[in-house]
Amino acid sequence: MDLSTLSLGQYTFVQNAFSFGLAVMAAATLFLWFSRSHVAPAYRMAITISGLVTAIAAYHYLQIMLSWEAAFSAVGGTLEVTGYPFNQAYRYVDWLLTVPLLLVELILVMRLSKSETVSKSVTLGGAAALMIVLGYPGEVSEDAGTRFTFWVLSMIPFIYIVYQLVVGLKGSISKQPENVRGLINGAATLVVVSWLFYPLVYLFPLIGLTGGAAVTAVEVGYTIADIVAKAVFGILILTIAMRKSEAEGNS
Amino acid sequence: MDLSTLSLGQYTFVQNAFSFGLAVMAAATLFLWFSRSHVAPAYRMAITISGLVTAIAAYHYLQIMLSWEAAFSAVGGTLEVTGYPFNQAYRYVDWLLTVPLLLVELILVMRLSKSETVSKSVTLGGAAALMIVLGYPGEVSEDAGTRFTFWVLSMIPFIYIVYQLVVGLKGSISKQPENVRGLINGAATLVVVSWLFYPLVYLFPLIGLTGGAAVTAVEVGYTIADIVAKAVFGILILTIAMRKSEAEGNS
Repeated sequence: MDLSTLSLGQYTFVQNAFSFGLAVMAAATLFLWFSRSHVAPAYRMAITISGLVTAIAAYHYLQIMLSWEAAFSAVGGTLEVTGYPFNQAYRYVDWLLTVPLLLVELILVMRLSKSETVSKSVTLGGAAALMIVLGYPGEVSEDAGTRFTFWVLSMIPFIYIVYQLVVGLKGSISKQPENVRGLINGAATLVVVSWLFYPLVYLFPLIGLTGGAAVTAVEVGYTIADIVAKAVFGILILTIAMRKSEAEGNS
Repeated sequence: MDLSTLSLGQYTFVQNAFSFGLAVMAAATLFLWFSRSHVAPAYRMAITISGLVTAIAAYHYLQIMLSWEAAFSAVGGTLEVTGYPFNQAYRYVDWLLTVPLLLVELILVMRLSKSETVSKSVTLGGAAALMIVLGYPGEVSEDAGTRFTFWVLSMIPFIYIVYQLVVGLKGSISKQPENVRGLINGAATLVVVSWLFYPLVYLFPLIGLTGGAAVTAVEVGYTIADIVAKAVFGILILTIAMRKSEAEGNS
């Protein structure tokens, strides 16, 4: 990533996006954990994990923001790179933890049988972790061929997850109470749509999108995608859990 | 430990591993403490301690990460050692506290008689503390003979603990309810297998494994072993406690 072409305005804009990401994730965490008492005990673990995901993301947005600040110096009113590398990989560390947990949230709120919960958590969570691990070597490589190879490898578990969410969960979703079926379908769709952003951005350097504007677009884009995939998704899971608790008569 | 041969990529990778360790331990702590309400009162102390172990580890991963950052300077895009020593000994401070507590977790979740709980906690916890104390002088010594001597001394309590877990606990495990016997055996095996990693790594400098790749392997390896021995083990203890609470009719 070539940071030297960034303008001071672009630097500040990205900095603000990271700070916004941190604030949203931390606020979502507190909101979700305060709301645990509004759902039936059977759904509390789903809400605990939803808040854990945003808490982990808040920590990583703090780290990303500090790394961003360390990579630049604005003393004297002009932007200069310090040579200290901007650690983009904090995102991977975050995803390795949060992406499997996001799928576990969805599985837990569906309240499937114990064996289904475990088997789906293991297969979907495992596929998600594999997807992130396979993306990392390409992200840190300077070689376009390596980047593309690991993109392809990483897409295999990605497509498996999309298939499971769109087709594999259909049977389980149809058994959900009618008042939440639409919401659960919506949550599965939200995962698929918001996740599509990541492999797309991964390809940017390969198609020649570099320079200050591209860096700004990537960082702000990732931040928006993270907010949708984690905070908005978490609130959706909470809504589903509240409706199900109400329908089951113990909210 | 010779840090001067590390590449910038290796430095960043280890940094990410430490940050990952911190995030996992902190997340596991919150998850375990939130889950206390899902187990019967008799098992809550086991879960409290499981969360304490990961909380102590989270604090030490923060310290290790900061010490790692202070040992290097990446200004100008190339990695240089600052001369500020990387404080590997934070690991020993951590283990001195957490390793005895890990054994106490396992003993508490078994819900033995009061006298057995106390006697096993004292002997196993004491042996674990002795093992760590005996390892420390060898770890900080530059002399190969001293390192090896304290490795041997430290292995005596280690072997005693392994023997107790594999043979000594057999009688108590056979008295556990059938639905958790496999899990408790699994937890004891997890301790033995994940702990085997530490004495092995301790020997690395003696067999000539040094340089950037060895430092990276040791630090990332310790981090993975810690995550398995503390966070994964803690979740296993929680699962056992939840199943036992359920079977005893007060979840």
